[in-house]
Amino acid sequence: MVSRQDALALDDADVLAGLRDLFVLPDDLIYLDGNSLGAQSVRAADTADEVIAEWREQLIGGWQGAGWWDLPVTAGRKIAGIIGADPDAVVVCDTTTVNLFKTVNTALDLRPDRRVIVIDEGGFPTDQYVVDGIAERRGLEVRVVPTGTPIEEEVDDSVAVAVLGHVDFRTAELLDMAAITATLHGSGSLVVWDLSHSAGVVPMDLSSVDFAVGCTYKYLNGGPGAPAYVYVHPRHQGAEQPIPGWLGHAEPFEMASRYEPAPSIRRYLTGTQPILSMRLLDAALHVYEAADVEAIRAKSSRLTDLFIRLVDERCDGLGLGVIGPREPSRRGSQVSLRHANAVPIFEELVGLGVRGDFRRPDILRFGLAPLYVSFVDVWDAVDALRSAVGARM
Amino acid sequence: MVSRQDALALDDADVLAGLRDLFVLPDDLIYLDGNSLGAQSVRAADTADEVIAEWREQLIGGWQGAGWWDLPVTAGRKIAGIIGADPDAVVVCDTTTVNLFKTVNTALDLRPDRRVIVIDEGGFPTDQYVVDGIAERRGLEVRVVPTGTPIEEEVDDSVAVAVLGHVDFRTAELLDMAAITATLHGSGSLVVWDLSHSAGVVPMDLSSVDFAVGCTYKYLNGGPGAPAYVYVHPRHQGAEQPIPGWLGHAEPFEMASRYEPAPSIRRYLTGTQPILSMRLLDAALHVYEAADVEAIRAKSSRLTDLFIRLVDERCDGLGLGVIGPREPSRRGSQVSLRHANAVPIFEELVGLGVRGDFRRPDILRFGLAPLYVSFVDVWDAVDALRSAVGARM
Repeated sequence: MVSRQDALALDDADVLAGLRDLFVLPDDLIYLDGNSLGAQSVRAADTADEVIAEWREQLIGGWQGAGWWDLPVTAGRKIAGIIGADPDAVVVCDTTTVNLFKTVNTALDLRPDRRVIVIDEGGFPTDQYVVDGIAERRGLEVRVVPTGTPIEEEVDDSVAVAVLGHVDFRTAELLDMAAITATLHGSGSLVVWDLSHSAGVVPMDLSSVDFAVGCTYKYLNGGPGAPAYVYVHPRHQGAEQPIPGWLGHAEPFEMASRYEPAPSIRRYLTGTQPILSMRLLDAALHVYEAADVEAIRAKSSRLTDLFIRLVDERCDGLGLGVIGPREPSRRGSQVSLRHANAVPIFEELVGLGVRGDFRRPDILRFGLAPLYVSFVDVWDAVDALRSAVGARM
Repeated sequence: MVSRQDALALDDADVLAGLRDLFVLPDDLIYLDGNSLGAQSVRAADTADEVIAEWREQLIGGWQGAGWWDLPVTAGRKIAGIIGADPDAVVVCDTTTVNLFKTVNTALDLRPDRRVIVIDEGGFPTDQYVVDGIAERRGLEVRVVPTGTPIEEEVDDSVAVAVLGHVDFRTAELLDMAAITATLHGSGSLVVWDLSHSAGVVPMDLSSVDFAVGCTYKYLNGGPGAPAYVYVHPRHQGAEQPIPGWLGHAEPFEMASRYEPAPSIRRYLTGTQPILSMRLLDAALHVYEAADVEAIRAKSSRLTDLFIRLVDERCDGLGLGVIGPREPSRRGSQVSLRHANAVPIFEELVGLGVRGDFRRPDILRFGLAPLYVSFVDVWDAVDALRSAVGARM
């Protein structure tokens, strides 16, 4: 049996334990919802003050003087380093939904003779909605891969593109990006990976990946609604995306009447981006200067392992079932449990100072953000869970 | 001849003069670029602090607890009041470009048998790019109305939709929204108005207008890259827009696999919006509680009249030409001048503490934001202009 003392010992030995000091978190809260909205970095408040001062003092001059104009690509380079991408292949802009819309359409343009879009059932709803909407307008077929079915089984040479969530937001299952991408490429298909639930906690290598999108307010801690990013492999950057805008023009200040897309990832910019929100994201990414994603992943696996082991050891017979893979290599930085009384248990847990979340119909999710969640947090959270379930039996 | 004393007297009589105290502006600057990036309201700094505190203290709970979830519609209602729209017909989201993409596609869906999109030459480049891109993908014809040609002459029953800038960003010409909309409707066409250069300084009535979009960082003072808005007439809100997303679903937290659009303007939401930037916009809109747009327009017309009169009186023979209409009723809150040495004059003016802007090839633009620009600012700016042109003769 793992004791609380054991968990404290794990924290003592944790080389990343000091990173928690880079965040501000309420003292009385164990925050296990960083997979929905990440915690605030200590730099956030000062950064907001800085941008307010830049706007006040420089006004329109801030676009050049304060680096706002280049911010989508300078922040994009930082994210590229975290997601294993070419530094010139990522730009921060818009929302995950809009970036999916751009990349899926571009991928389809690159495979004009193919009629099928593959999507995994475990993807986030917005991915499904975007794909269905595009397929309807373009007269294509959508093939949904049921959860548990290997994606490879649904791939053939009719597939133009597959849109896949790297980590399933419900079950935390982590897909094998390299193997699946290789299979898709083997049949001439392209792939768009949604990295929203993996970026920052799972190491990855995008060097053979066609397109990727993701949000920045989960494990990247960009703040509420921080803008998303889009990755396009350099070999595809010559293709046009479907929402041409002034910011994506090769020479915006020519104010030309004809659109000529920038010869770079900048063509994925559409309109003017929300600078204040983007600067908070940019500031949050500094945490990644202090720890690489491999080390973060190692801690993440130990955290989720410990959580599951404690549920096994201490919550036996309470009606809690672990959803998703038990092998840490196939799991994101999250543990999902099923319980018939999930809603009141979730609420009871909040009262006990543990913030997870709930997804219909009966799923309790616990995001274990390795940058600021400790092993003793996990121990205390499962202890609270045991009390909460007991109170609702 | 109008003297500086006369200008000071106009300020003394200005019922809106006190609004300047709601903004923070550098002491040594006459800021005439509010048509590019509006000034900062005094509430901005505190509002940024508030949102930072909400995120820090409430974390994920801020979506409900701090009103983030409803912010796109609550801020939208405030903008509706400023642009003469039904309060339930506006939502703040995304960029002007993305909102144009949505509304133009929706308008085309509503007129499937028509093959022409009309656009005015004086519109902002992004409007042209979006329209060209959509037309190419849908196999439609784009008809560009040359500057100076009445739009009515280019309208016939082949036109599905016209995309029109309410105020020309180069010349400040203000189009007659009511008359043009009526003409378009008379031939069964729809209209999308881009209000970026008129919202907040020109009274308008959208009660018969189909669609409108606009940015919020010019006269609405939302801050750099503050999110845009989209207006859809209630009679068209049942039509689908082309970028379905989770936030636009009727029941997002059902996490349903099928998209069902919200039965309201919320269906124009795509992904999660940048809360910090949107809250700064929301805070800036409080200024409109203290002044109605009719009064702002009255001051605006007097400011631009004064500017032009002073150029006539004091800059005669200096090679400056006023572009655009001389009748205030046909002009937005901006004066544009042409000069062969526009670039060095612009730079000289900056050195003299007057910030206007420059648009290729030879245009000097002066945005006279009535909320914080005074009559004596106009006098001093034209005085500086006279010196600047003289220095560059």
